Amino acid sequence: MPEHPPMPPEPSAQADVAACLVIIGNEILSGRTQDANLAYLGAGLNDVGVRLLEVRVIPDVRQTIIDTINEVRRKFDYVFTTGGIGPTHDDITAEAVAGAFGVPIVRDPEAMARLVAYYATTTIELNEARMKMAEVPAGAALIENPVSGAPGFRIENVYVMAGVPRIMQAMFDSFKHELKGGRPMLTRTVVAPIGEGTLAAGLGAIQDAHPAVEIGSYPFYGGGRFGTSLVARGRDADELDRVAEEIRALVRSHGAEPGDAPL
Amino acid sequence: MPEHPPMPPEPSAQADVAACLVIIGNEILSGRTQDANLAYLGAGLNDVGVRLLEVRVIPDVRQTIIDTINEVRRKFDYVFTTGGIGPTHDDITAEAVAGAFGVPIVRDPEAMARLVAYYATTTIELNEARMKMAEVPAGAALIENPVSGAPGFRIENVYVMAGVPRIMQAMFDSFKHELKGGRPMLTRTVVAPIGEGTLAAGLGAIQDAHPAVEIGSYPFYGGGRFGTSLVARGRDADELDRVAEEIRALVRSHGAEPGDAPL
Repeated sequence: MPEHPPMPPEPSAQADVAACLVIIGNEILSGRTQDANLAYLGAGLNDVGVRLLEVRVIPDVRQTIIDTINEVRRKFDYVFTTGGIGPTHDDITAEAVAGAFGVPIVRDPEAMARLVAYYATTTIELNEARMKMAEVPAGAALIENPVSGAPGFRIENVYVMAGVPRIMQAMFDSFKHELKGGRPMLTRTVVAPIGEGTLAAGLGAIQDAHPAVEIGSYPFYGGGRFGTSLVARGRDADELDRVAEEIRALVRSHGAEPGDAPL
Repeated sequence: MPEHPPMPPEPSAQADVAACLVIIGNEILSGRTQDANLAYLGAGLNDVGVRLLEVRVIPDVRQTIIDTINEVRRKFDYVFTTGGIGPTHDDITAEAVAGAFGVPIVRDPEAMARLVAYYATTTIELNEARMKMAEVPAGAALIENPVSGAPGFRIENVYVMAGVPRIMQAMFDSFKHELKGGRPMLTRTVVAPIGEGTLAAGLGAIQDAHPAVEIGSYPFYGGGRFGTSLVARGRDADELDRVAEEIRALVRSHGAEPGDAPL
C-alpha cells in the first residue's frame, strides 16, 4: 500500500440535485432530544432523486439562523429546516427566515383559516399564542400539516417544517413528489461476516474499477457478532449489479459466505 | 400579543466554551444509518462545561472535509469529528485532516505498537490495510481506543474519533475530563400535561423576567398522551429553582398538575 493512498473519486456533486437540512433546536445540541428527522429526510429525498449533501444543527439564536439560511440557500438547490415553528417564545424560526429573506412576517389568512378549522375539532382554545403559528414570511407558500393544523411554509427554495417527527414527516410527504430531482441513486448491499480490514485491498480495487459507483464499507458489532455491510451506490442498475457480484466474489475468496441483510 | 413578538435574549455564546461536531459519512446523509453520537457528545460535553453549539454532517469528500475543518476549527474552541478512520478506501478522514492543517500524514510508531498489541489478542491478521489505521497527521497526539486498538487522534483543537458508537463513546470518555470547560449548564425540567400553546404567554413572561436562563418548550405526543416538557437551562442553581417554581405555578394556574418526568 502506498504511504499516501489515492483518494476515492469525488462524487459528482455538481450533477446531483443537492439539498441541505438545517435542524434548529437547543434540545438537539444539548443531547436532550435524539433527532429523528435527518434519516427520514435523507431516505425520502433519495426516493425522488435529490441528494442530501449537508446537515447543520444550530441553536435557537436568531442571527445564527439568519446567517446559516443565507449561506446554504445559495449553495444548495433545496434547503429544509426543522424545528422552532410552534407557539412559544423560543419558536423563532419563521421570524428569522423572514429576516434572512429581508421580508416582513405577516399573519397569513389561509393559515389562520386552517388553525380555526383544526382547533374547532378539539377542546383546545385558539389563543393569541397559537395564532402566532399563522405568521409566515411575506410571499411564502403554505405547507400542509395534516396532524395538528399549524402549517409549515416554503419561501423560494427553503422549506420550513415542524420539529416533532410525526408532523415533520407528514409535512414532507405532502410536498415530496413536487420536488424536481434527478435520477435517483440506487443501492446494492452485500453483508460480509468478516472484518472490513480483510476486504479492504480487494474493495479498493473494485472501487478503482468503477469510479461512477460509490462503495461504502460499514462495520457493525452487536449481539456477539460482527461483520461489514458493503453498500454500492450509483445510478446505473446494471453496473451496480456487476459491482455487487464482484463484492460477493471477493467475500467468498476470503472463505466467507456473503448475505444481503445485516446479520 | 404584538405582531412581532420580541426575540428571546441571545444566549451569551461568547461566554461559553464552544464546540462543533463534524459527522463525516455518506451513510448518515443517505438515511441508511441513524447517528447515535451527537446526543452522547452533546450531553457529555455539558458535563464538563463545554457547550455544543453546532453540528455539521458532511459526505466522505476530501475537499469538503478540509474546507469544513478549516472553517470550524477557527470558529470554535473545540472541534470533534466522527467517522472515516477505518481501514478501507472510503476512510479518508485522517488524510483530509492532515490536508486541512497542511501537514503530511505519517505512520505513527506508537499507533503501530497499539495495533500490533491489539491484533495479537485476536485471530485477525494485521494486514497492510489495517496498518493504515496507524496513519495520523504529523504532530498529532493519539486518542485511546479501548475497544478495538486503532487509535483516534488530536491535532491542535480538533479531536478525530471513530464513527462506530461504542468506539466513539470509549474514545470520548478517555479524554473528556481533560477538556477545559466553563461552569456547566444546569437544567430543571417541568412536565405539563397540557399543550404548550396554553402556557405560551405565561412562559414568555417568565423568560422575559430571567434573561440569564434559557427556557425551552418541547411538546410531545405518544401512547395517546400529549403534553409539554419545559426545560430551564442556566448556570445559577438558585435562579433555576425559582424559575422552575414559577413554571410549576403557571401550570397549576391552568388547572393542571406539573410533574418532573415525561409522562
